[in-house]
Amino acid sequence: MAESWVNSAERIGVDLHLELSGPGGRRAALIRALREAVRSGRLAPGTRLPPYRSLAADLGVARNTVADAYAELVAEGWLTARQGSGTRVAMGVPSTPFGQWGRPEPLRHVERLPRAAARGPRHDLRQGTPDASAFPRAAWSAAYRRALQAAPAEALGPGDPAGRRELREALTEYLARARGVRTEPGRIVICSGFAHALRLLFGQGREGVLRGPLAVEAYGLDFHRGLLAAAGVRTVPLPLDEHGAQVSGLRRERAVLLTPAHQFPTGGPLHPERRAAVIDWARARGAVVLEDDYDGEFRYDRRPVGALQGLDPERVIHIGSVSKSLSPALRLGWMVLPERYVGPVLAAKGEREAWASVPDQLALADFVVSGSYDRHVRRMRQRYRRRRDRLVAALAAHAPHVEVTGIAAGLHAVLRLPPGTERSAVKAAAWQGVALDGLASFRHPETAMPASDGLVVGYATPPEHAYGAALEALCGVLPPG
Amino acid sequence: MAESWVNSAERIGVDLHLELSGPGGRRAALIRALREAVRSGRLAPGTRLPPYRSLAADLGVARNTVADAYAELVAEGWLTARQGSGTRVAMGVPSTPFGQWGRPEPLRHVERLPRAAARGPRHDLRQGTPDASAFPRAAWSAAYRRALQAAPAEALGPGDPAGRRELREALTEYLARARGVRTEPGRIVICSGFAHALRLLFGQGREGVLRGPLAVEAYGLDFHRGLLAAAGVRTVPLPLDEHGAQVSGLRRERAVLLTPAHQFPTGGPLHPERRAAVIDWARARGAVVLEDDYDGEFRYDRRPVGALQGLDPERVIHIGSVSKSLSPALRLGWMVLPERYVGPVLAAKGEREAWASVPDQLALADFVVSGSYDRHVRRMRQRYRRRRDRLVAALAAHAPHVEVTGIAAGLHAVLRLPPGTERSAVKAAAWQGVALDGLASFRHPETAMPASDGLVVGYATPPEHAYGAALEALCGVLPPG
Repeated sequence: MAESWVNSAERIGVDLHLELSGPGGRRAALIRALREAVRSGRLAPGTRLPPYRSLAADLGVARNTVADAYAELVAEGWLTARQGSGTRVAMGVPSTPFGQWGRPEPLRHVERLPRAAARGPRHDLRQGTPDASAFPRAAWSAAYRRALQAAPAEALGPGDPAGRRELREALTEYLARARGVRTEPGRIVICSGFAHALRLLFGQGREGVLRGPLAVEAYGLDFHRGLLAAAGVRTVPLPLDEHGAQVSGLRRERAVLLTPAHQFPTGGPLHPERRAAVIDWARARGAVVLEDDYDGEFRYDRRPVGALQGLDPERVIHIGSVSKSLSPALRLGWMVLPERYVGPVLAAKGEREAWASVPDQLALADFVVSGSYDRHVRRMRQRYRRRRDRLVAALAAHAPHVEVTGIAAGLHAVLRLPPGTERSAVKAAAWQGVALDGLASFRHPETAMPASDGLVVGYATPPEHAYGAALEALCGVLPPG
Repeated sequence: MAESWVNSAERIGVDLHLELSGPGGRRAALIRALREAVRSGRLAPGTRLPPYRSLAADLGVARNTVADAYAELVAEGWLTARQGSGTRVAMGVPSTPFGQWGRPEPLRHVERLPRAAARGPRHDLRQGTPDASAFPRAAWSAAYRRALQAAPAEALGPGDPAGRRELREALTEYLARARGVRTEPGRIVICSGFAHALRLLFGQGREGVLRGPLAVEAYGLDFHRGLLAAAGVRTVPLPLDEHGAQVSGLRRERAVLLTPAHQFPTGGPLHPERRAAVIDWARARGAVVLEDDYDGEFRYDRRPVGALQGLDPERVIHIGSVSKSLSPALRLGWMVLPERYVGPVLAAKGEREAWASVPDQLALADFVVSGSYDRHVRRMRQRYRRRRDRLVAALAAHAPHVEVTGIAAGLHAVLRLPPGTERSAVKAAAWQGVALDGLASFRHPETAMPASDGLVVGYATPPEHAYGAALEALCGVLPPG
């Protein structure tokens, strides 16, 4: 078989459709064509290729072009060249795979079920995502360009795992002004968002900076609980009441994770006495409070409730991100750390920044310092407040029996439902193309708190023009009064 | 003590320097001033604050301004308000911390030793980092702006953990053309770089997609070995010779990590027969080959050696990033996966993109499709090739006894030294402000391979103008012939 090739170079060009076309010149075209011929099995393993001269003549190319092409394919493993035995299609290599693939071009498309978010429900009233259509593209691009232009060259080298100094300085000032956070740039570590912060703190594949057991609010994000469980951290649920988490239930836990500004998802701020009490507990036990400040900027009825961190910067790890204020697509967040945790968290992050995009960090620093961030937050706060008002009005008009709670702040509200109606309401909503979650999906599986029925309605996600229809659809699926 | 305040509101404004200045109006200024007074201990715990009316009169502000400020500080936990007892500085809260802090503004600066990279050696000849001063800022910013402007709104919502489709399509085409990779967008998963890919594959705090033992090249990045060890993966060193890793030594390992295009750091391509042999081994054992294509674009003596992945897309995980070609600051990489690993890797990544910046992904897609990436790589290839030639020439002139190897590709070369001279050469270099590594620091601690002395000289990092001086300094520290 192999020998038959010596004097039949033409077959390569003709039978095998060895077309020398496409970009990169004849040499590149010949390499591609030969590679394809081997791939597809048209050139069988062991086949001896024609000498340079013959193939060159048949194809009308220079002898060197063929020699180069063979050498390239030998280096790539498609062909082998031995003294005295000429150039052959490699054994072993193409036989099995190409038999198994048949004609492998193109590869079988890997089907993936589209994610719910990508497929998109008709009306997305799930909590947690800001209105993506309101992202300030022009202002952000301008900040990005300015920041990249102004950055020193070292900014494009390996990144400091603490994050860019420019951003940590901007955040120090911003968080003090907007959230009452007391820190300085040396205590801030940039990360990719809240989940990344949890991973850094509790370790993944290494010993964590913190250890469990970790007290958490009886209602919270299941995603966070799962992440903690994966890191081997036991979570202990704290019951909630109208004043927030019952921190008097804290015992021997080593840390507590709270949403003090706006309990997630039930919606109230932590009572001032409990704010004080949890700090006292942390001091007395040498414990630490993790403050998830997930929507602290979005308070409607008065100025933001200051961060718990301001009460004791050495007892609170304050964690925030731009995921609600700008976009979850940016993957930028921050940890404001007590001094003793700075070193361990940086050690957990590694010697270089492996996560947060440095140009994005520089852009955010510019965005904050230039006032664009404040302007955007203000604009979104007004927008979301109007949406909240429309939600409340729609419910008052169409479902006056449904109590709305947790509406002083944030991007979602809780609709309290009659006992036993939550599941069917969530189902009815799904049938009508309305995506939302029931309170049950936020409930810690081990809490002894009596369950109450409710819907968590996010009002931030739909684009502005679609919000009215979403509200109408929502009112249509609520249980009758 | 507390009562003394009732009629001495003036003291707040005068003795306590209650200055109503700064942004946000008088109400915000009063809140800040009161908060500071409590923080600093000037207003002691339990102190009763003056009635709204008195303080308002003393400060020349409206009564409501004072009432609002008190309410805010009560909500934040600084003050407490009880029926009949007026507004007081909270007990418990400010006492301990402020005693402990003394005058806490500003917080003690957290000192961190500047990283070597930040402090910077005089001449940085370490391998691994491209010339940061050559980052194509204008072209990249333009791609970023274009991409962000053109992106659909959902791109600014939660990200697909596979990465943006636009980028996966661009990479499919680019990797086929430039690296001979055979894939399709459904088999590509975007990540934050090679280390992130390893973490996703071998698990951290969860079961990995792959399991050890993992064969690795006897010389490689210690950082990768450390990361694998942290994930509980045992690495087994494969000896190297002039044809690359001795893959005939593969036995019962479940996977092998190779740098087939340009062994890191010793510098040769994997021999074609070994390319075939390692694929055969993987097929026979149901194992998988991890291809670290860390500098595949930078080949100087002829066209790039094609990716090993092209030989069998179902047996090779091809991993690349922009860390060498553009900048390690971007944190963008990709995994080209056999079909069976796509689901598990996506599951390891989580339900949403938690890492790679989506705007940066879109920018890279634009950068590739518009041809800017090719132009940049071409420009850098020429630049690095000139640097390599200058290195070779400088050594020929000043240290002809030093053999230079691994120079057909990449951003570094290996200078072979007489036995026993490596350590002193690295030290001598450090004294002269030349940062570089000896071969020993890349050596797997368990390899039985005889050690050889050498210096790994990265020629990409210095800015263009500083390269000549770096070479001169390097030649000055080499052991005499």
